Amino acid sequence: MNLPVFGLDEITRAVDPAAVLDAVRQTLIAHTHGRTTVPPPMHLEFADADGDSHVKAGYIHGAKDFTVKVASSFYRNPAIGLPSNQGLVCVFDARTGQARAVLDDGGMLTGWRTAAAGALVTDALAGSGVESVGVIGTGQQAELQIAWLAKLRTLPEVRVTGRTEARAADLCERLARHGIPARPAPLAETAGSSVVITATAATAPVLAAEQVSAGAHITAIGADMPHKNELPPELFRRAALIVTDDHRQCLEHGDLAHAVRAGTVEDSSDISIGRVLEDPAAWLTSGISIADLTGIGALDAAVAAVVVDALLG
Amino acid sequence: MNLPVFGLDEITRAVDPAAVLDAVRQTLIAHTHGRTTVPPPMHLEFADADGDSHVKAGYIHGAKDFTVKVASSFYRNPAIGLPSNQGLVCVFDARTGQARAVLDDGGMLTGWRTAAAGALVTDALAGSGVESVGVIGTGQQAELQIAWLAKLRTLPEVRVTGRTEARAADLCERLARHGIPARPAPLAETAGSSVVITATAATAPVLAAEQVSAGAHITAIGADMPHKNELPPELFRRAALIVTDDHRQCLEHGDLAHAVRAGTVEDSSDISIGRVLEDPAAWLTSGISIADLTGIGALDAAVAAVVVDALLG
Repeated sequence: MNLPVFGLDEITRAVDPAAVLDAVRQTLIAHTHGRTTVPPPMHLEFADADGDSHVKAGYIHGAKDFTVKVASSFYRNPAIGLPSNQGLVCVFDARTGQARAVLDDGGMLTGWRTAAAGALVTDALAGSGVESVGVIGTGQQAELQIAWLAKLRTLPEVRVTGRTEARAADLCERLARHGIPARPAPLAETAGSSVVITATAATAPVLAAEQVSAGAHITAIGADMPHKNELPPELFRRAALIVTDDHRQCLEHGDLAHAVRAGTVEDSSDISIGRVLEDPAAWLTSGISIADLTGIGALDAAVAAVVVDALLG
Repeated sequence: MNLPVFGLDEITRAVDPAAVLDAVRQTLIAHTHGRTTVPPPMHLEFADADGDSHVKAGYIHGAKDFTVKVASSFYRNPAIGLPSNQGLVCVFDARTGQARAVLDDGGMLTGWRTAAAGALVTDALAGSGVESVGVIGTGQQAELQIAWLAKLRTLPEVRVTGRTEARAADLCERLARHGIPARPAPLAETAGSSVVITATAATAPVLAAEQVSAGAHITAIGADMPHKNELPPELFRRAALIVTDDHRQCLEHGDLAHAVRAGTVEDSSDISIGRVLEDPAAWLTSGISIADLTGIGALDAAVAAVVVDALLG
């Protein structure tokens, strides 16, 4: 059989979000227990083209597939009518090494697994009395965080804050197409919500620690490199619970890294998302909780397996 | 356009060995001058399936492509009728990050680039008066080393030594199909040839230093991991010239590593293959020369670019 290549349309039609959420939940738990293999990523820079490429591999022990993902960003592409984000996910049989499929997904699988991981931990730690939800950031991942959270619970009107009100209004329109009510809001109102999600490429805190309400839950998605930063170190000092998707990664290039360097928390102050997902009720707190996500390669394997099983049967 | 996938038959029909040799020569020279990007490879182990997978990326500065290669070995595959070696080469546009093609080559591109690199350095350092050529090893790479060397110069009858005479006879038959005369020979005769190529998976020297003739050239292909070893450290002490495809890699997991650890040569005793290929006449020696190859990821990019250009025009 020739190796099949699937494009984004086919992938989108085939994928069942409930199956993605379930696979991501299981994989975050497996990762907590050391049942995943995630080698350090490879990185290539293309200075002449203002581009870079990351190669990530992931394997969940006992799974029938492993994946190798190439995810690139070439920032001059929009000028010639191409998306900045490019990439492929190659799926291999973990028992024979044979290639099963190539997913020409334009980076969407990464978007989905990031959204699913964020939505799961937000839902687990938000508790039952969520009066307000705020999102800071107006890009694709901000949209996906809210859209996937809405698959797990009914949301009140979402407050949206971006770099401009026009961008915030644009995200509200996109959310409306998902059937989710949303309105642009000033930063103080968004940051003061019962649940706050940050999904930006910021390199300095996007809110002030004192803007966050007592008892709020914050999920921070954006920081995945040492120079990126969304949450102020002072907010970590206020937190009753700090949750990370990968302890070491978050200490190196998550928001937690900035807080530890600033001395507002110890480097052992976090627990893993997998532990929370195993028993969410045990971790609900009346204080502030923070989830810091940096993205783990095993989730690529989890989502790709769901997609390939749906496509190949 | 859908992303094209090419199988081994199409690749074999499209590829021009002269173009591969030229690309490999240029890339070895570029590598010598630091004009390549080769991140440390990723490695995954699948203990339950007796398999492992290596992911390598390569980019030649200024080239229009870069590649990400997945090469796996699953040692139980033959029992279920599959080849042990599995893999894919993904070729991306280095100006936009867009995937250009996937080469479902069964590992053959790695075979070709290894053969081309070995043949080029063997040809460069063998000199004009080659009375005899010997090869130790009887696998696919032993065959390719001789077959590609024969594209560069006319060979005398090749002496072949393997673990058994039957394996040696089998390689001689395969070489005859390339129009290359060959016969099984005892180790002492093969090791005493004017040119000796070792292409084995040995973990201990396959010949004795004193078996090598004065003025001989040796090309060692097999050692690409720290525990592998084909040439005795004592042979490096006898050598007038030591050549490596990548200084650091050879110091870590080539035959040179064993010699340096044994103290028979300094860790700065080698020069790069690229320097030899720039001006072969300058490096011919009446003493023993050794070429130690460990394989560099930029050669994957070089060969894949030749193949994709031939296939896509």
